[in-house]
Amino acid sequence: MGDTRTEISQLGEFKLINKLTKNFKPSNKSTVKSIGDDAAVIQGGEGYKVVSTDMLVEEIHFDMMYTPLKHLGYKAIVVNLSDIYAMNATPEQVTVSIAVSSKFSVEALEELYKGIALACDRYKVDLIGGDTTASMKGLMISVTAIGIAEEKEITYRDGAKEGDVLCISGDLGAAYLGLQVLEREKQVYLEDSNMQPELEHHGYVVERILKPEARRDVIEYFAKENIKPTSMIDVSDGLSSEIMHICEQSKVGCLIDEGAIPIHPEVTEMAVQTFGLDPTVCALSGGEDYELLFTVQQSELEKIKQFPDINPIGIITKESMGRKIKAKSGRTYDLLAQGWDHGK
Amino acid sequence: MGDTRTEISQLGEFKLINKLTKNFKPSNKSTVKSIGDDAAVIQGGEGYKVVSTDMLVEEIHFDMMYTPLKHLGYKAIVVNLSDIYAMNATPEQVTVSIAVSSKFSVEALEELYKGIALACDRYKVDLIGGDTTASMKGLMISVTAIGIAEEKEITYRDGAKEGDVLCISGDLGAAYLGLQVLEREKQVYLEDSNMQPELEHHGYVVERILKPEARRDVIEYFAKENIKPTSMIDVSDGLSSEIMHICEQSKVGCLIDEGAIPIHPEVTEMAVQTFGLDPTVCALSGGEDYELLFTVQQSELEKIKQFPDINPIGIITKESMGRKIKAKSGRTYDLLAQGWDHGK
Repeated sequence: MGDTRTEISQLGEFKLINKLTKNFKPSNKSTVKSIGDDAAVIQGGEGYKVVSTDMLVEEIHFDMMYTPLKHLGYKAIVVNLSDIYAMNATPEQVTVSIAVSSKFSVEALEELYKGIALACDRYKVDLIGGDTTASMKGLMISVTAIGIAEEKEITYRDGAKEGDVLCISGDLGAAYLGLQVLEREKQVYLEDSNMQPELEHHGYVVERILKPEARRDVIEYFAKENIKPTSMIDVSDGLSSEIMHICEQSKVGCLIDEGAIPIHPEVTEMAVQTFGLDPTVCALSGGEDYELLFTVQQSELEKIKQFPDINPIGIITKESMGRKIKAKSGRTYDLLAQGWDHGK
Repeated sequence: MGDTRTEISQLGEFKLINKLTKNFKPSNKSTVKSIGDDAAVIQGGEGYKVVSTDMLVEEIHFDMMYTPLKHLGYKAIVVNLSDIYAMNATPEQVTVSIAVSSKFSVEALEELYKGIALACDRYKVDLIGGDTTASMKGLMISVTAIGIAEEKEITYRDGAKEGDVLCISGDLGAAYLGLQVLEREKQVYLEDSNMQPELEHHGYVVERILKPEARRDVIEYFAKENIKPTSMIDVSDGLSSEIMHICEQSKVGCLIDEGAIPIHPEVTEMAVQTFGLDPTVCALSGGEDYELLFTVQQSELEKIKQFPDINPIGIITKESMGRKIKAKSGRTYDLLAQGWDHGK
């Protein structure tokens, strides 16, 4: 960021917005009018528009002590795009509103917008609008993402049927452990500010929390292979909670196979040896993985298995069968919104 | 609100969202899927979609000491719809995200959503999504509004031409004076909490700041009479600032007639007698009026004058003529972003 510090008050709102957004050039032909009027204008089109919105609040969703602003900007976009992909849709536009206290300099906000620009470029979405305002305390970022899909492609949470296979992209639990590492290093630093954070050996888990990616590749594979999931959701609150949403809205039960839940070797090792945690609990309850959880008919399973990064983790059952997880021990437990019930 | 106080933490996020939004029923046929999935789904359609977003922050945009939550919810929607109307478009959907500290009860948020519901009902827009999160301090509301318009109807800020007539709906300066009244009563209360606020005699100006309306009627009149403004903007930052935006983006000058600026009699009287202010300065620099400022060709003027609530206030000139205001005294001054330059 260099050594310069420009106060936001030196610029005023209009010059600030101009400075932050002047390098954003729309790339989607559906973007008719971007920043600079009362509202942005986008083409309607024959299909459907898909709209998702999320708010990130300092000290609630992120800690400035260990969150680089560029990463934060990137993540603020990605978590919204993840919701659009979870509808089997393709994001095309985003709006970004920020409320910011005077502790942030113009240069700090430029870092934030560098991350936003990086995500927009990588995922081919256009920044079309937003609002920039003062706050009394801290930083808030509100993002709305808009995507497109044909009517028949859109995948809701309520379409899972008995016999469908429950699948997950990527691996789970890493973001949760990354957060534990960052919190631990923060405490070390607060106790002795001469200590430098030890993050080098934890590259994977730390990157998963600070700079997550959304699974565009999975949606593109579905389109290419003509696969239509019967239901889908993104994993933001932990696998258990998302499975519950699908079961509740689809009015079905499930049987999850603990041994099939994909967990990165670094996560397994760190959970057990560093934090004394059960890796499965990290995966079930951790959250912020931004992987896609979906169900497909069994006939689609061969095509799904061709994708290097998707694993079947269970089967959809009748609602009356309940929501169950079969542990590695062979015993079956009730799945709970936060993890599983070892007591039963 | 009654005497009950339920803590937000007693409910949790999912139950809270459900409680706040369960009575919202979509009324536009373009709303395909509302709250309850990763994203909302709306129809594309042949025309264009218009997207606007705004953030309201406690202690920056509103003061809880004199802002009833129901009014705040209403206003949060209305200010966004005003931006959609300013594009000559019709709003159909909104998303509402809130970040809220533990000082707010569930009952308080229900009041906020009652106001949101009232605005949605009055303006026929559907609440289709949002996010609800904790904040460390205060209340933040982020609203995104989505509207529709045919391509040829959309009115930007950059279409004003030399000879066009500059027009304004309603009257100006009242919201600014309303804010002065509320701030004065707040100070009285802070000095002696036994004093009751004297708001009764200031009904018009107080309502204009606490519960503004967006000018749907003007847009509907344009459609009915087949009037196409050449440029348009809504008055959120004060008349001067909005005129400057139109002149800058249209690359034109203007000559405003001070005597033609519509000011409510209550505003004139209160500005002079209570606050010792120039009513014209209140109109030029006040802001938050949410009236529509637009330009039309002179041939449209007869139709415009039929509308009871629209006044021509000046003429568009060549850019080289500058941005001028002719005072009641007959002298001409430079118009500045904040008011006008008496010094020249």
